[in-house]
Amino acid sequence: MTPLSPTEPSVLIEEKASLQAKKIRFEINKIRLPMGLEKEFGSIKHPGASLAVPQTNDGKFVLLRQYRFAISRRIIEFPAGTLEDGENPLSSMKRELGEETGYEAYEWESLGQMCPCPGYSDEIIHMYLARNLTHIAEPPPGDDDEDIEVLIMSKSEINKCISSGNELLDGKSITAWYRACQLIEN
Amino acid sequence: MTPLSPTEPSVLIEEKASLQAKKIRFEINKIRLPMGLEKEFGSIKHPGASLAVPQTNDGKFVLLRQYRFAISRRIIEFPAGTLEDGENPLSSMKRELGEETGYEAYEWESLGQMCPCPGYSDEIIHMYLARNLTHIAEPPPGDDDEDIEVLIMSKSEINKCISSGNELLDGKSITAWYRACQLIEN
Repeated sequence: MTPLSPTEPSVLIEEKASLQAKKIRFEINKIRLPMGLEKEFGSIKHPGASLAVPQTNDGKFVLLRQYRFAISRRIIEFPAGTLEDGENPLSSMKRELGEETGYEAYEWESLGQMCPCPGYSDEIIHMYLARNLTHIAEPPPGDDDEDIEVLIMSKSEINKCISSGNELLDGKSITAWYRACQLIEN
Repeated sequence: MTPLSPTEPSVLIEEKASLQAKKIRFEINKIRLPMGLEKEFGSIKHPGASLAVPQTNDGKFVLLRQYRFAISRRIIEFPAGTLEDGENPLSSMKRELGEETGYEAYEWESLGQMCPCPGYSDEIIHMYLARNLTHIAEPPPGDDDEDIEVLIMSKSEINKCISSGNELLDGKSITAWYRACQLIEN
């Protein structure tokens, strides 16, 4: 897995407005694009996130059914979390996996990085395949606003879920699943 | 393909702040989650978008290498566009396909819907497989800030691109590709 392609920054001409909401900030800036055009654009500045595809020792996968206020729905996702400022993505994911699922993993393999929303967010998600799982005797507490249910699903159940669309998996989860399926045995 | 699961809205307690940037608006609101907790959250209100996986008549696919200021990079994506207010997703995509690629498609099939960023955006992307393509003699002009290059790639080139990570495809494109691969012939 190679790193992301080199950046080609736009030039900041003028900061117009911004709003901070916990870890994310929305900014409206006037910028000069590499093509030469100067224009105002709004976008999210995000500290980045990490995600794990956790495979149990009997070959199933740990997912979450989670309430997401932004889309007013419960959807199925792989465990993931927003980085604390300057936090290492893998360390963050090890902590989140314990908090969200009660599992600890002893084998971690990179599934690369992805951009969930390149049109208006700089978020980059670091994805991992987590194997050799054990239950944590006393899992650490998660965030007070998380409303989640832990699911154990087989490969075919996940594929059926994605293809039927009966329950939605989000973009980062389907991307990570696509990458994981290239590494796991059939 | 079934529709999205039913919504389970949170209750708006107080509007705290908002910023509008062209078609998207960032809002910070105090809301009551279904679990009972009241808290302030920031999120993007987005009119929705549509995306096409266009297959040429000789079995290749039309993609774009596009500059994205938010991530300061060029990435590979399937053609897509943000809806105008109240616009029909399929009509929008037919227009965008012409503007961005110079192709017109006579067969359209739904690939369902996806959420690129359910943690902080209500955006829903309507995905389509577009077949039976012809070149438009005089393609309509696109947006003045679009910096795009049209690519024609084979199925194996796309798969290699996603698995190597040499050039990034974003979450919506990998999700749409996963769904399209369930419909197209190998």
